[in-house]
Amino acid sequence: MSEMESIRKLSMLLAKLPGVGRRSAERMAMKLARDGSGLIRNLVDALNDVQEEVSVCTSCGGLTDKTRNPCALCTDSRRDARMLCVVEDPGDILLIERAGDYRGRYHALMGKLSPMKGEGVGGLRVEALVKRIEADGVQEVILALGTDVESDATAVFLSHVLAGRKIRISRLAFGIPAGSDLSYADPVTLARALKGRQPV
Amino acid sequence: MSEMESIRKLSMLLAKLPGVGRRSAERMAMKLARDGSGLIRNLVDALNDVQEEVSVCTSCGGLTDKTRNPCALCTDSRRDARMLCVVEDPGDILLIERAGDYRGRYHALMGKLSPMKGEGVGGLRVEALVKRIEADGVQEVILALGTDVESDATAVFLSHVLAGRKIRISRLAFGIPAGSDLSYADPVTLARALKGRQPV
Repeated sequence: MSEMESIRKLSMLLAKLPGVGRRSAERMAMKLARDGSGLIRNLVDALNDVQEEVSVCTSCGGLTDKTRNPCALCTDSRRDARMLCVVEDPGDILLIERAGDYRGRYHALMGKLSPMKGEGVGGLRVEALVKRIEADGVQEVILALGTDVESDATAVFLSHVLAGRKIRISRLAFGIPAGSDLSYADPVTLARALKGRQPV
Repeated sequence: MSEMESIRKLSMLLAKLPGVGRRSAERMAMKLARDGSGLIRNLVDALNDVQEEVSVCTSCGGLTDKTRNPCALCTDSRRDARMLCVVEDPGDILLIERAGDYRGRYHALMGKLSPMKGEGVGGLRVEALVKRIEADGVQEVILALGTDVESDATAVFLSHVLAGRKIRISRLAFGIPAGSDLSYADPVTLARALKGRQPV
């Protein structure tokens, strides 16, 4: 078998997906090419469905049904509009919803500050965030960002942007993940967990 | 954003690809859903191309152009038909071809023995291997299998099946990977590298 053009092209596209390197993309393309169970056909159908049905909510930046904009979360009157949870990625909204405890609204930044990758403030939905805070009378902003250097920089940047307003700004707690053991925690995590210790 | 059916369906299909877990599949589906660069359309085209153009070589089990069966490797008269390299997966053929040193033919087993997953000899192309060895007068079989327990079991099984024939059976060398450092090698790898030490 020589390296076939169609397989090479497919694996190059798969390598654009998050967390997929060149080698993994090749393995995926190979699996798809020799699959006999109709996986390709199903995948094509599912991709077409997503393209037809899903769009981005103009309010929070999350994903929504094309027939519903703003999305169900932004229009749910039982949710507290004065509490806004800022996430990097629309997918993070789903993760927080699954956790089940949050009853406020969301705002997806669509990325984080990453000068190393040439991603500055330009691509982020910061202006929309400020407008929304003013329009909705938001009183509390929760920065539900990651814990890497870029997320830290984004958190600092946003707290500067929002400084001087009468809103509480908080960030997700750092600490030991649930179900884990101290021996798996790196020193930075452990130091942060110590610093943020809670009375029992 | 509630969990949308079309995204959920897409991520369940992506999770069927090798090396993709539930969480990674979700991240991929999210990225695809909010992509604005035409990734979905390109991926659909590439998948359709693979489905239209690629088929499995009836001789070696490798992937080939639909217009070419047996494949280019099986019909290349400059390759030595008496030397047969047995691999688990058609993708492995590509990896060995890239290494560039091998001038014999290939035979893909389409898997390995894995009683734990209920994958016995039934799914493997062992009968085709034996027939081919007889038909082509194969004199040397190279078992280019992996190094996990299942690959080891498959190698032992094949050497039993082929025992009693006048053919050399060998397996890829175990040892330290190229460009690596001793400190990265696990004890089993190191023990095997010692056992297989080569005169300088």
